[in-house]
Amino acid sequence: MLSRLSQSIEPFHVMEIVKQADQLQQQGRDVIHLSIGEPDFPLPEPVAQALTQAIGAGKTRYTAALGLQELRETIAHFYDSRFGATVSPGQVVITSGASTGLMYACLALINPGDEVLLCDPGYPCNKTFVQTAGGVVRTIQVSEDNNFQPTLAEVQEAWTPKTQGILLASPSNPTGTRISSNVLNDIVDWVATQGGFIIMDEIYQLLCYGSQPRTLLSQSPSGQTRDHCVVINSFSKYFGMTGLRLGWMVVPEALLTPIEKLAQNLNICPSTPAQWAALACFKQETLDICEARRAAFGNRREFLLRELPNVGLHAGSNPDGAFYVYAHAPYGSSQYCSDLLQTQAVCTVPGKDFSQKEGEAMFRISYANSLERIEQALQRMGQFNCREI
Amino acid sequence: MLSRLSQSIEPFHVMEIVKQADQLQQQGRDVIHLSIGEPDFPLPEPVAQALTQAIGAGKTRYTAALGLQELRETIAHFYDSRFGATVSPGQVVITSGASTGLMYACLALINPGDEVLLCDPGYPCNKTFVQTAGGVVRTIQVSEDNNFQPTLAEVQEAWTPKTQGILLASPSNPTGTRISSNVLNDIVDWVATQGGFIIMDEIYQLLCYGSQPRTLLSQSPSGQTRDHCVVINSFSKYFGMTGLRLGWMVVPEALLTPIEKLAQNLNICPSTPAQWAALACFKQETLDICEARRAAFGNRREFLLRELPNVGLHAGSNPDGAFYVYAHAPYGSSQYCSDLLQTQAVCTVPGKDFSQKEGEAMFRISYANSLERIEQALQRMGQFNCREI
Repeated sequence: MLSRLSQSIEPFHVMEIVKQADQLQQQGRDVIHLSIGEPDFPLPEPVAQALTQAIGAGKTRYTAALGLQELRETIAHFYDSRFGATVSPGQVVITSGASTGLMYACLALINPGDEVLLCDPGYPCNKTFVQTAGGVVRTIQVSEDNNFQPTLAEVQEAWTPKTQGILLASPSNPTGTRISSNVLNDIVDWVATQGGFIIMDEIYQLLCYGSQPRTLLSQSPSGQTRDHCVVINSFSKYFGMTGLRLGWMVVPEALLTPIEKLAQNLNICPSTPAQWAALACFKQETLDICEARRAAFGNRREFLLRELPNVGLHAGSNPDGAFYVYAHAPYGSSQYCSDLLQTQAVCTVPGKDFSQKEGEAMFRISYANSLERIEQALQRMGQFNCREI
Repeated sequence: MLSRLSQSIEPFHVMEIVKQADQLQQQGRDVIHLSIGEPDFPLPEPVAQALTQAIGAGKTRYTAALGLQELRETIAHFYDSRFGATVSPGQVVITSGASTGLMYACLALINPGDEVLLCDPGYPCNKTFVQTAGGVVRTIQVSEDNNFQPTLAEVQEAWTPKTQGILLASPSNPTGTRISSNVLNDIVDWVATQGGFIIMDEIYQLLCYGSQPRTLLSQSPSGQTRDHCVVINSFSKYFGMTGLRLGWMVVPEALLTPIEKLAQNLNICPSTPAQWAALACFKQETLDICEARRAAFGNRREFLLRELPNVGLHAGSNPDGAFYVYAHAPYGSSQYCSDLLQTQAVCTVPGKDFSQKEGEAMFRISYANSLERIEQALQRMGQFNCREI
């Protein structure tokens, strides 16, 4: 009775290790989580206040399927003020988390049998979104030498007559790396010549270190329009609204009606109080809080990258965004992460969720935990690695 | 570049008439809405309080994909205490509204090309859920004589070798009618003999009048198991949590792992504060509030059914659930509903969203509005109908 789709979805291997971690914790072990993709900060206070106020004011009824007009306008304005990018409010679609945005984009763009390019390593759910739409995943094996991001040549090589588009993520999960503007522009322009689409995951956009955040929606130097591009974003990571399940997408005009119909049919609307709360995200006082948090993430990242070699570990490439370091495992990462958890009570994530091919060679360290805990974890990792190697 | 799926979805015609209603309102007209599928009551106070408390306590982080264990246990217990039905907490899946439950059920059960039976008239989005999974919709034209619910003979007649299952709704939208227990049991048993599945929409379950609420999950008289049935429910209608986007499903054990993988991949988790708030739904004080509201709906229903003939209108069948009356339109319902709106500022919904075949003959009146407003609306409808007929 089970559909082939539901049988083909890989379980998250990370859940296994997190279950083991929970068991250890129940046994009284002090487990340090460097595992999850969730900021360790609470809701920014102005956002929590706006949420409570919305509830008090009875703002708990359905909204339009595409979201509150005020929020769509605020987001459009933010693209202008923050990135100098021109986005009309009509192009902004509020979604129940970036997940729903990825779903709408895939359902609106992919026909059964269409090939879609995904990068390996990458976010494991992307494969499921493509397959749910009936698409066939073609993988680009991205290289550490290129910052775990695709080059134009790799895209061109992977593209076949059946390929309809590509999904990119910058900063990327699990690698924390960003694609360079030049390469991205070249890919965007070339994909346009093929009549293909680009789905661009920018959910970690505002969490980057060392250089300014970017968006695909900025004007292309070639003047090429972005009508073949869909941008996905989220209130979860930078704004810390994970459990409120809210995100947004920016879509070309031609996609608006199809996506409105999908949204009406498949979800009715995103969470109403979450939408009212999200309006507070763009207040200066919230942005100040989030920038201070970004600075904290930046310090942790710097510490981690400096100390990893001292415990016998090496980060892959230059992780300058998100809150992940994708590191080389001393031996098979499934076993290594399990050993690290069992002996040192440090929970990291083996690579096989993110990469079919190289997953055993790598593991993901999340620095969504306090500097103090990260220091402790590194000490423990050092003890383990020095004993083993 | 648009997928065939996204092009094939019908727009909601109701949106057109609601837009017209908005325009009239902006022109200063006093529009009475008998149009929407949303209770006119605010959040029950204990639910609003629980929601605010959850936010204050920082319960805004991701939960498990299947939902909070406490909530799953509470719902399982409610099936026992309210319906005497045995449901284990492990079978309960918390979803982002019933919409997401319908989506998971379809994706878990339907392969591309599988036929699925839907009733006409019915909830228009059901077709989209089936099609998103690649399924092919086969329609059972249900009859007013049978309370707009299918008979076993109709199901048997519509079933082909390609048919894999059927979606039922009781009480149904737009008709407000329920399927009789006997017919339902016969259908459930017969579909089991065909190796098929049943997706049962019970989102209006607790909103019924004149006789007790029922669930498919009660023991079948034949002793037939219910392992081929998925039940969909919602916190939106009876508990008034529409904009919080929360629902649940009860699934057979065999579906749990596939649906957990779908949930992890496609949504991460349902809204966390909404889940904590939903726990308060099952407190006696909340149930008392909701029962008082049900009584208010019951009074409106009674008034409406009594008065409709006096304004020249006739309800189809016996609408003893939800908050809808599906009535015969004096002439083509698209034109009739438009005329009623333009001349009398009463907004109802033409039937074509709900029925391909008979839609023009019928229209939907929602009594999710105060008795006073319903009285006013009926006066206006009487003026219009007496003038026209």
